Amino acid sequence: MIASLAQFEAFCRDLPQVDERARAEASARNDVLTKPPGARGRLEELALWYAGWRGEAAPRVSAPQLAVFAGNHGVTAQGISAFPPEVTAQMVLNFEAGGAAINQLAKESGASMTVVPLDLDQPTGDFTVKPAMTEADVCAALTAGWEAVSEGADLLVVGEMGIGNTTSAAALAAALLGGSGADWAGRGTGLAPDGVARKADVIARALATPPDRAPLEVLRCLGGREIAAMTGAIARARALRIPVILDGFICSAAALVLDRAVPGALDHAVAGHLSAEGAHARMLEALGKTPLLSLGLRLGEGSGAALAIQIVKGALACHSGMATFAEAGVSDKDG
Amino acid sequence: MIASLAQFEAFCRDLPQVDERARAEASARNDVLTKPPGARGRLEELALWYAGWRGEAAPRVSAPQLAVFAGNHGVTAQGISAFPPEVTAQMVLNFEAGGAAINQLAKESGASMTVVPLDLDQPTGDFTVKPAMTEADVCAALTAGWEAVSEGADLLVVGEMGIGNTTSAAALAAALLGGSGADWAGRGTGLAPDGVARKADVIARALATPPDRAPLEVLRCLGGREIAAMTGAIARARALRIPVILDGFICSAAALVLDRAVPGALDHAVAGHLSAEGAHARMLEALGKTPLLSLGLRLGEGSGAALAIQIVKGALACHSGMATFAEAGVSDKDG
Repeated sequence: MIASLAQFEAFCRDLPQVDERARAEASARNDVLTKPPGARGRLEELALWYAGWRGEAAPRVSAPQLAVFAGNHGVTAQGISAFPPEVTAQMVLNFEAGGAAINQLAKESGASMTVVPLDLDQPTGDFTVKPAMTEADVCAALTAGWEAVSEGADLLVVGEMGIGNTTSAAALAAALLGGSGADWAGRGTGLAPDGVARKADVIARALATPPDRAPLEVLRCLGGREIAAMTGAIARARALRIPVILDGFICSAAALVLDRAVPGALDHAVAGHLSAEGAHARMLEALGKTPLLSLGLRLGEGSGAALAIQIVKGALACHSGMATFAEAGVSDKDG
Repeated sequence: MIASLAQFEAFCRDLPQVDERARAEASARNDVLTKPPGARGRLEELALWYAGWRGEAAPRVSAPQLAVFAGNHGVTAQGISAFPPEVTAQMVLNFEAGGAAINQLAKESGASMTVVPLDLDQPTGDFTVKPAMTEADVCAALTAGWEAVSEGADLLVVGEMGIGNTTSAAALAAALLGGSGADWAGRGTGLAPDGVARKADVIARALATPPDRAPLEVLRCLGGREIAAMTGAIARARALRIPVILDGFICSAAALVLDRAVPGALDHAVAGHLSAEGAHARMLEALGKTPLLSLGLRLGEGSGAALAIQIVKGALACHSGMATFAEAGVSDKDG
């Protein structure tokens, strides 16, 4: 149970680092596999990153976990979403019944799926008029994320559902990275141009009296329960040495909070994809992450990262399953 | 058995077209799935493309096939590869033993794998001094590709192994699309700059007495057995209404021959990935295809396209497995 933001931040300052020895052993293995040097491109980089975090020279991905968090947002009162807020709870039922996109992608990638609805009948405060959450609220959400991570998982994707949450994510980005409401407001689930303008104005109003800029305090004032839960889950994964694939705009905002609170806290994470939500590219740039996929998704739920599980699995299957030049009797470069 | 290039071309002019009715039914289904319109980005486009070719409104990918062709190239006498030619046969043994990258990726994607070595003890002619193949040679290779496609497959990836074949692919591109040897010569498996310059010169010499520009004749003069086999396999897949994922530089050159011989002959194919081989982007542009992945691979074997199988599978799993708004009781846009 996370009791205070100060306690959570202290904890995050003490997270484990990459296992340099395992990474070096993986790198030595990579050099003698039956392929031209570097020919597997980013798959090689992914394999070494994963090996370093798992502390093994030749690991496999065999137990990926998908954790999807859902929350409701008081700011929907400002008319910033194309869908009504009751859709959050309806989609949670859809996740539980197996009918959403993320269910299909979880099955395809062999991932277990954990669905965590967070007080859906208690939307956060409308952050244009008051802080979204109390410290107790945000600590409860961080704890829910923390506890959702399975100790037996070897790869984690965090996803979300929450009508209104691109507005919250955009406000977080504006507060943490600077820029105007218009710089960060996008179409979300499909807003028309006048809706996007309203959203930009809502974000501008939320920033008019700037909150204390401590990142976790920004999360409390402008975030949402599902966003805080993702922040907590990403931190817990690090504690358990479970590599993380970040999803799109909202997940990246949750990760950004952690990154700004504790530099280096996302070293165990890669960016799964570039979302079609306009400002996502800028957010990934701020995180220093190059997305694995760019397929124009803007669905949330963890969907882009779930697809990227297959890329990471493929990278490790090659790294750990391929023969070496010596084993296969293949002549090395330049004969 | 393909008896002549004229016969093959005539056959390709008579290939089946997309099933517009199945595509329209798939599109109608896509409109009522539980997601904001367009939110699955390219996954939606892929699902409709696949449904149209398979002639079903809600199909799945359940039997992907990976066919890997291997051939040797007389042009290796010109010193245009970082690896010696005996590596082609050694890698075929590695494929058969399950030790190569493509074996791991085939397993990950649930694809069956067919390995077809083509007269490895008879390299093609050195095309700087004579045509690479006779008409009988190229027809035999087209036939081998044709026959390698399984009638029960529902998605095809064609890959290759052939020391020297980026030089052949670059020469094909230069002859079919214009440009100099230097425009199309790249690092292949890892050539140093002087090797790339030598490769550019080799291509320029091959183009000095331009062959007849009929695309299949270009294939005969500058191609290779494994490249012609890929051309034959891609055509056969179309005849069987099996959608195809193109791999990198060499596979795309094989596809380019077909595209230039018979416009529209690649409508059943998508580009799996953008290779790190420099000129691949220009080749895909000529084909009018946007790659699904861009991960810096330059391995061949079908590896990039094999990874992309997972993207196509994910697209169809969502399309055919998701609930509709009505089924899930989820409120549609704007409540």
